[in-house]
Amino acid sequence: MKLKVREPPYTVHIGRDLLREAQISARPGPKALLYDRAVEAFALKVAAALEIPHRLGIPGGEAAKTLEGYRAVLSWLAGLGVPRDATLYVVGGGTLTDLGGFVAATYLRGIAYVSWPTTTLAVVDASVGGKTGINLPEGKNLVGAFHAPAAVYADLEALRTLPPHTFKEGLVEAFKHGLIAGERALLEPFALSPTHPELGAYLARAVAVKIRVVEADYAERGERRKLNLGHTLAHALEAATQHAFSHGEAVAYGLLYAALLGRALGGADLTGAAARLLAWLEPRPFPDLAWEALEPFLARDKKKRGGEVHWVVPLALGKLVVRPVERRVLERTYREFLEVVR
Amino acid sequence: MKLKVREPPYTVHIGRDLLREAQISARPGPKALLYDRAVEAFALKVAAALEIPHRLGIPGGEAAKTLEGYRAVLSWLAGLGVPRDATLYVVGGGTLTDLGGFVAATYLRGIAYVSWPTTTLAVVDASVGGKTGINLPEGKNLVGAFHAPAAVYADLEALRTLPPHTFKEGLVEAFKHGLIAGERALLEPFALSPTHPELGAYLARAVAVKIRVVEADYAERGERRKLNLGHTLAHALEAATQHAFSHGEAVAYGLLYAALLGRALGGADLTGAAARLLAWLEPRPFPDLAWEALEPFLARDKKKRGGEVHWVVPLALGKLVVRPVERRVLERTYREFLEVVR
Repeated sequence: MKLKVREPPYTVHIGRDLLREAQISARPGPKALLYDRAVEAFALKVAAALEIPHRLGIPGGEAAKTLEGYRAVLSWLAGLGVPRDATLYVVGGGTLTDLGGFVAATYLRGIAYVSWPTTTLAVVDASVGGKTGINLPEGKNLVGAFHAPAAVYADLEALRTLPPHTFKEGLVEAFKHGLIAGERALLEPFALSPTHPELGAYLARAVAVKIRVVEADYAERGERRKLNLGHTLAHALEAATQHAFSHGEAVAYGLLYAALLGRALGGADLTGAAARLLAWLEPRPFPDLAWEALEPFLARDKKKRGGEVHWVVPLALGKLVVRPVERRVLERTYREFLEVVR
Repeated sequence: MKLKVREPPYTVHIGRDLLREAQISARPGPKALLYDRAVEAFALKVAAALEIPHRLGIPGGEAAKTLEGYRAVLSWLAGLGVPRDATLYVVGGGTLTDLGGFVAATYLRGIAYVSWPTTTLAVVDASVGGKTGINLPEGKNLVGAFHAPAAVYADLEALRTLPPHTFKEGLVEAFKHGLIAGERALLEPFALSPTHPELGAYLARAVAVKIRVVEADYAERGERRKLNLGHTLAHALEAATQHAFSHGEAVAYGLLYAALLGRALGGADLTGAAARLLAWLEPRPFPDLAWEALEPFLARDKKKRGGEVHWVVPLALGKLVVRPVERRVLERTYREFLEVVR
């Protein structure tokens, strides 16, 4: 499947055996490859198919997405003397594509990059939207740039070596896209596996939602903030626990909290769907965390404007509002939330 | 004087006592101030006039423009929880505005910044064009982003505390703009001083050239590269000597080399003007540096495309070409150059 992104124009390829497709539309100019060591075998296939001479394998995960990781990749490119007309290929999960995209956005003030996302999360979330970036000790994604890839190749073969839990976690974002766009098919990821014949179609549907939301934002400022559904609590949870939770787990918890918030604010009851997602995901248990302990991390959430945290609240399937919420409502809802997850 | 930049639109204010002007058009929202400790007294006046609560003073110079400096400023902003609608004010020379601009370009994926350049170099070179960035151990300006300021205030009062040599060095770039645009008035900075009544007009003329060149680049890709006149050799000289030369000195040497190259390639003889500039500037003596020792640093020059270094060669006043030059011509011209500067 090919999904077209319009602004800037590029194509997201989703399917099996994309190496040949990538060879046909190979980019001219020098090439370098940054990859996650966890998918080294697949990365080396990409390097061989596209004849990429320079390769750097690093450990993935949040540890990659730091100023130290940023420095290491920049020094590698600068040491090789990689020029401005080069393309950086990035093979790995979301942390690698975020890091690699930010390096590409800023090395020599910007070079091209092509991403080969190798996790469900990276396919659904990181391949569209142009957001790149790294974390600071003070919080996630506090540094970055908007820099769209020249192309995205989501080869389902690369997903076969994913740990089953990680495979599921990425589909949490697809589920989120289902809530945002009101697409019921996306709320039923429960039967999927790396070899399931419908996986490509499911992922493509989820990516298509993101493309629509991101493109709508060129007209309607703020539309894109809907993608933050479930993420305000998720980011705070990750920060408050020093990333004891994976992103997918944190977002799944965040979606349940958002659903409870929607119900508390008079919206439809979406808590059943969110609870089913959590039951299927089997995340690490929610920690013993008081609202007061989460709050400082909420205040740091970068979506904050004018001193207030804006929450994305689902009022019905496909209908969201982005708004500040009174502290007492947030706190009461958090108590309800704790009752459900404990 | 007010110079308008069109894309993105902002104004460069040049004159004395700009604090009141800045107060009148003060930006709404949270504010933070990054400044060079060398101009602390002036920076605190800006902070007081604009009621900026958060201030960070750091030492200027190339040491500021590193990944460590970048990290320090980012951590300061993140630690304060500075939000996305904030404005970062930067008071200092080109290294501070380059660093501060890059922080603003990437903190929370981009916040606004307003620059108060306090050196002649920063006024002429860094206030227009939107280039921001930092150095790597491997070379200068290897990391950065295009991010235009929301406004520039070049207050001539801030230049009064500049060391005389530093004052002169910034005018080297103005001289360069004279060569590029064929404006003879810019080739005669010799009588200027911080209190000279014509200083504002001279600087405004130099900035206007840069605005024209940068704006022409939206139509004509490559026009902007003319601003690199003198810089290919200058960057290599700085890198090869571990920044033993200031940027102005290196560029002044680079302009003479470029003038010799122009003559060698059949252009008009502009070497007299370049030599007068050097005699007035009194730079540190040119080091005992063989062409072979410079070459590896030339190869790293980021303007390199397709494996070849492109040189900006002045063929006459206001007439430049950007092209690769044969090694033997470069080397022969370098020998001529050494004869002149020794």
